[in-house]
Amino acid sequence: MKLFNIAPVNKTLEKEITHKINFKTKPLNSLGSLEKIAQKISLIQQTLNPKITNPSLIVFAADHGIAASNKVSPYPQEVTAQMVLNFLNGGAAINVFCEQNNLNLDIVDAGVNFDFDTTNSLIQAKIAKSTQDYSLQPAMTKEQCENALVKGAEIVTKKFNENCNCIAFGEMGIGNTSSAALLMSAFTNVPIEACVGKGTGLTDKGVNNKTNILKQVQILHGISEHPWQNLQNYGGFEIVMICGAILKAAELKMTIIVDGFIVTSALLAAQALAPNVLDYCIFSHVSNEQGHKKMLQFLNVEPILQLDLRLGEGTGAAIAYPIIMSAINFMNKMASFESAGVSNKD
Amino acid sequence: MKLFNIAPVNKTLEKEITHKINFKTKPLNSLGSLEKIAQKISLIQQTLNPKITNPSLIVFAADHGIAASNKVSPYPQEVTAQMVLNFLNGGAAINVFCEQNNLNLDIVDAGVNFDFDTTNSLIQAKIAKSTQDYSLQPAMTKEQCENALVKGAEIVTKKFNENCNCIAFGEMGIGNTSSAALLMSAFTNVPIEACVGKGTGLTDKGVNNKTNILKQVQILHGISEHPWQNLQNYGGFEIVMICGAILKAAELKMTIIVDGFIVTSALLAAQALAPNVLDYCIFSHVSNEQGHKKMLQFLNVEPILQLDLRLGEGTGAAIAYPIIMSAINFMNKMASFESAGVSNKD
Repeated sequence: MKLFNIAPVNKTLEKEITHKINFKTKPLNSLGSLEKIAQKISLIQQTLNPKITNPSLIVFAADHGIAASNKVSPYPQEVTAQMVLNFLNGGAAINVFCEQNNLNLDIVDAGVNFDFDTTNSLIQAKIAKSTQDYSLQPAMTKEQCENALVKGAEIVTKKFNENCNCIAFGEMGIGNTSSAALLMSAFTNVPIEACVGKGTGLTDKGVNNKTNILKQVQILHGISEHPWQNLQNYGGFEIVMICGAILKAAELKMTIIVDGFIVTSALLAAQALAPNVLDYCIFSHVSNEQGHKKMLQFLNVEPILQLDLRLGEGTGAAIAYPIIMSAINFMNKMASFESAGVSNKD
Repeated sequence: MKLFNIAPVNKTLEKEITHKINFKTKPLNSLGSLEKIAQKISLIQQTLNPKITNPSLIVFAADHGIAASNKVSPYPQEVTAQMVLNFLNGGAAINVFCEQNNLNLDIVDAGVNFDFDTTNSLIQAKIAKSTQDYSLQPAMTKEQCENALVKGAEIVTKKFNENCNCIAFGEMGIGNTSSAALLMSAFTNVPIEACVGKGTGLTDKGVNNKTNILKQVQILHGISEHPWQNLQNYGGFEIVMICGAILKAAELKMTIIVDGFIVTSALLAAQALAPNVLDYCIFSHVSNEQGHKKMLQFLNVEPILQLDLRLGEGTGAAIAYPIIMSAINFMNKMASFESAGVSNKD
């Protein structure tokens, strides 16, 4: 498996960036989190004048063996394919928010249990029609896991070559909060019961049932010290593809806008493989899925939004994008005390 | 004094609005706060298809007698006028964020201690060149207070007649966190020391000093049961004008986007005069100025953003505006389960 070569961000410019921020016509630190975002993107881009070009959001969709039996989600597995068609028709939440905020949107079939019409705009990257049921065997083979990772990286490289320097990832896959909970437990050592949540809307009884199933799954496969093995046991194809996409985006020094619970589970895997990946990540929101807050605490990062979202698809990233643009814009467009002739404080 | 006639929002459509939200292609309640915003604006507009037209932000600027002696702010009083010129030149934070988010921006001279060129785009509404120093006498006369209120209302009426149905207010005035703290204490009964904060960046010692001064001011004037009297004693002209603007906007059934500490102090006065005003308010953010969180708790409302902003000018409202648009957009543009052919959960 080819490794990604992810450099830490060079911090030489840090003081100059801070100076530029501090001499804008505003009280010191008064733009709060926006100043941190401006600082971070300026460092990623190694410039005092950060710029976002061709911002893009890619939704990876795949089915999960565990979901075929309707044990972990209140929605039937068919909904994955139905929602992919809804994305392609422009009717889903992520379509609306990407259109509003001028984000390019691409949809990837990472492994949906459906034969899509190949003439539509869907990016074809199907590894298989759903993973295996990990209550019985590993979710995927080593080869499938590697293929998914490489595919995710390839898709990002293509975007990069189209002059995109800021990217977000979303997902769709009935049952994928179960994969994310298992990966979270494997990478953070948080007990599985504290990782499991309501997903798309289980009752308390449903959450108990899901927890019991996932406890058994964890006993079956255990937690490996090798990130690959955990991905192979518990992953969804969409999650592994997002992991590869994140690693490649960081290697290419793109700004990565991280969405919610599922995408952060892919990031946990990426971070276990290459800790420097965090230098390139902005965290868009904390989801209402209970495990997500603990994931962000584990990574020691602050989300931009806290809006009780738990829709997935990358919606948190898309909704947070204008706030990131506000950080970029104040950095480039606000006057300084000197240029505006405004007295600074003593 | 003519009273405003503010009707409570008619809730007859509530169930229909909720039904429309719940049958969008997403898990139930999964758009969290966005669903509440969509619900609220739909009720204000009495429609299932809410629409924002000519959204506008108006910054009211004025000077404060207390600030002339440099006791309550680290910035000199001249900065108010300098920042007004910065607004007119397009160099301030609020210019950048309004431009980004397509908000009309107007600047009002409510009482700045400076003679501006009358040929520029500034809206002339000067009540006087700064309030009186309320450590010695009431900040303004009854007549000035009424004039400011009427002016604020007139400016909003003009916007309404230009087809604006969504409005936000910002402020500029060196020393105005002191006014806001005194008004907060008067309207919420929170002790003054818990209302006073760092403003534009006082040191801890500076905050102590400001607190001691404002305690004396509060002893001098006391807390009145008549909202007008509190406004007259402690107000800034910009704050009273915003109070009048809020009351008129609510009367006209416009959606009001509430900014930070100063604007919320004006809302506290408006709410004391006409409690129904809250039916028309969306709270954009909780400021890093310590009293703001307690103001929002007093009003029992949730802010959209928590970004440690404390810049003023209406910046919180401008930055939050795209999130409000996301609420409007999902309501109008997302497909329903039925229209998209997606299976709903059992």
